[in-house]
Amino acid sequence: MEENESSASPPPPTAAEVNAMIDELFPGTGNTCIELGEGFALASRPVDDTMLRPGGFVSGPTQFGLADAALWYMVFAATGRIEPMAMTSELSIRYLRPAQGSVLWARATVASAGRRNVVGTVHVWCDDRDHKPTAVAQGTYAMPN
Amino acid sequence: MEENESSASPPPPTAAEVNAMIDELFPGTGNTCIELGEGFALASRPVDDTMLRPGGFVSGPTQFGLADAALWYMVFAATGRIEPMAMTSELSIRYLRPAQGSVLWARATVASAGRRNVVGTVHVWCDDRDHKPTAVAQGTYAMPN
Amino acid sequence: MEENESSASPPPPTAAEVNAMIDELFPGTGNTCIELGEGFALASRPVDDTMLRPGGFVSGPTQFGLADAALWYMVFAATGRIEPMAMTSELSIRYLRPAQGSVLWARATVASAGRRNVVGTVHVWCDDRDHKPTAVAQGTYAMPN
Amino acid sequence: MEENESSASPPPPTAAEVNAMIDELFPGTGNTCIELGEGFALASRPVDDTMLRPGGFVSGPTQFGLADAALWYMVFAATGRIEPMAMTSELSIRYLRPAQGSVLWARATVASAGRRNVVGTVHVWCDDRDHKPTAVAQGTYAMPN
Repeated sequence: MEENESSASPPPPTAAEVNAMIDELFPGTGNTCIELGEGFALASRPVDDTMLRPGGFVSGPTQFGLADAALWYMVFAATGRIEPMAMTSELSIRYLRPAQGSVLWARATVASAGRRNVVGTVHVWCDDRDHKPTAVAQGTYAMPN
Repeated sequence: MEENESSASPPPPTAAEVNAMIDELFPGTGNTCIELGEGFALASRPVDDTMLRPGGFVSGPTQFGLADAALWYMVFAATGRIEPMAMTSELSIRYLRPAQGSVLWARATVASAGRRNVVGTVHVWCDDRDHKPTAVAQGTYAMPN
Repeated sequence: MEENESSASPPPPTAAEVNAMIDELFPGTGNTCIELGEGFALASRPVDDTMLRPGGFVSGPTQFGLADAALWYMVFAATGRIEPMAMTSELSIRYLRPAQGSVLWARATVASAGRRNVVGTVHVWCDDRDHKPTAVAQGTYAMPN
Repeated sequence: MEENESSASPPPPTAAEVNAMIDELFPGTGNTCIELGEGFALASRPVDDTMLRPGGFVSGPTQFGLADAALWYMVFAATGRIEPMAMTSELSIRYLRPAQGSVLWARATVASAGRRNVVGTVHVWCDDRDHKPTAVAQGTYAMPN
């Protein structure tokens, strides 16, 4: 619980800036930042066979990983700066229905952005944006001291 | 994770119907259903001294209780019927900033409504609807067999 | 995620010291600290009619409130000092079976105690210590700056 | 919340039986079942470069994946049978300190095992068993209908 919040949000970095940082410091995650906007971030990754479970469903940890990435990008949107050392403090996820498709998406929206912690909610789905969510999550990123 | 979801939602019960059930079966919770709509529920309770902590802040468990109630009402909205024996299966809450005010509010929105489980996200705040959230939560209600 | 942890734990305060602080600063919660030990805290409250739901079951928010209190006491055990302004940052709870009995218990054990955050796991049950848990929880307390 | 629990647990399958099922149905996860016992499961995976973040720390999603696997194995221990289609319903994780080492471990213990749901708590750490946890988690597996 924090009282130190900036009242006006600075403009978010661009998705290209985020992806350039990831390519440099965190190569190989497979997650891509698609869009950052005021109070949200959109992430995606192509589905490949290594992440499929019997029946052709995208595995839970793959969905978790993209949800976590979307929250991380959302921190950059909420604070107006790319902060690679922001780290997941806690994250809870609920799986809602089987995930089938060729592209996995996650959209994170800011609930609060304080000096120490940034909190948000994430929806995960497959393929088209009007598809029902396959998972929802909520979690906290801790800002470096 | 469930595949058995109704594609078209039935109309939600009214808030008055929900409050009549609560008065009969669960008197004394202090939580009131204000509005049910397609995919959401709004709940509130007046703040009194018994729920205040030093500094005049609404206690965490009070906020949890209202968030839990809003999710319960949301189950009625999602399924189109008042199901008193739907029970919280799990709920996670994050406290965002001090809660001060005379009325506590919670709004729950549906993430998925299956035969066995209903999942949603909740925002809690004080007084005016444009106030920043004091807590966010996400959780699951289990439907009776 | 924190690296600043004290390697040796100071001795915990006594339950009597904790209850004296509660009586002074947080009267009326109904929760009592029964025991503090190295890395754990035990809390209880008598069950009364106001916390019962149809069928005679202890309500979920009552169990949440005691779990939250046990975590708070556990912070005092983990840090060796009574810190009234430690606050719940996030807490997730799972309800396991109906809670019936005359006394509700919660035992919290420390997972980590850092400078900024203290994390623990809680078990909640009714009456005798060998009864099966009615709820389990896990959560984080934030230390004041 | 369930009342239908078996009072006596059947003997758990062996770790070899679990790993044979995984090799057949879920190859390539990288997680191994080390031990199943009454009410618990132990899992591990070797750390390789693909799961390291700047500073040489094991990534959060890698830890989540192993915690999730340990819970899954624990379901087999709790129910006495290998049930490949048991699925994560929800899982919350807290990261406690940087994870560095050559082998990642996770130990899951049963909180309750019902007909519909199995709930447990997980500790994750690196290398030696007396090392402090790098993450703790708690979650629910849903049994197939």
